[in-house]
Amino acid sequence: MLVVIAKLKAKPGKGDALAAKFSEMVAWVTENEAMTLTYACNRSNTDRDEFVFFERYPDQAALGAHSSSDRFKSFVGELQPLLDGGMQVEMLEEVAAKL
Amino acid sequence: MLVVIAKLKAKPGKGDALAAKFSEMVAWVTENEAMTLTYACNRSNTDRDEFVFFERYPDQAALGAHSSSDRFKSFVGELQPLLDGGMQVEMLEEVAAKL
Repeated sequence: MLVVIAKLKAKPGKGDALAAKFSEMVAWVTENEAMTLTYACNRSNTDRDEFVFFERYPDQAALGAHSSSDRFKSFVGELQPLLDGGMQVEMLEEVAAKL
Repeated sequence: MLVVIAKLKAKPGKGDALAAKFSEMVAWVTENEAMTLTYACNRSNTDRDEFVFFERYPDQAALGAHSSSDRFKSFVGELQPLLDGGMQVEMLEEVAAKL
């Protein structure tokens, strides 16, 4: 199982708007990406501008398919005015999990 | 929903032993901690000595109850010879999630 942990930061004052946009993305992924097994968006308690995604994919093909749709690409465009810098991505493999 | 992301590091050469111990812990939590809703142990692809837990709890009581059992405390003791330093913990709240 492939796991992605991705950190993103909101521009100052844009945290709530970014959270709303991420909620839309999670809803879209839930409806449209069957092979994105887990897609959880979380907001740091200590830095309210920091968001961390936790994502699980069964294989590279599923990871590759994620975010390749036109709608997902348009989401990414909508994020740009809200984001401070790029995304920090960590790739991992699942050892064991209660889900 | 409360989310915890915790990083731990194995001593050099102890990564596989630590992964095995974490698998035991996940199995134990799965059997014994109904209110630990998610408890996923992952191993970094770029640093095989780094492990990241992703954990979800419905509330502070569930988070407090996690790891308070005698068995869990004995697990923590068993980890000590395998760990390089302490645990880095980040506390977050869930914005939205496909699970």
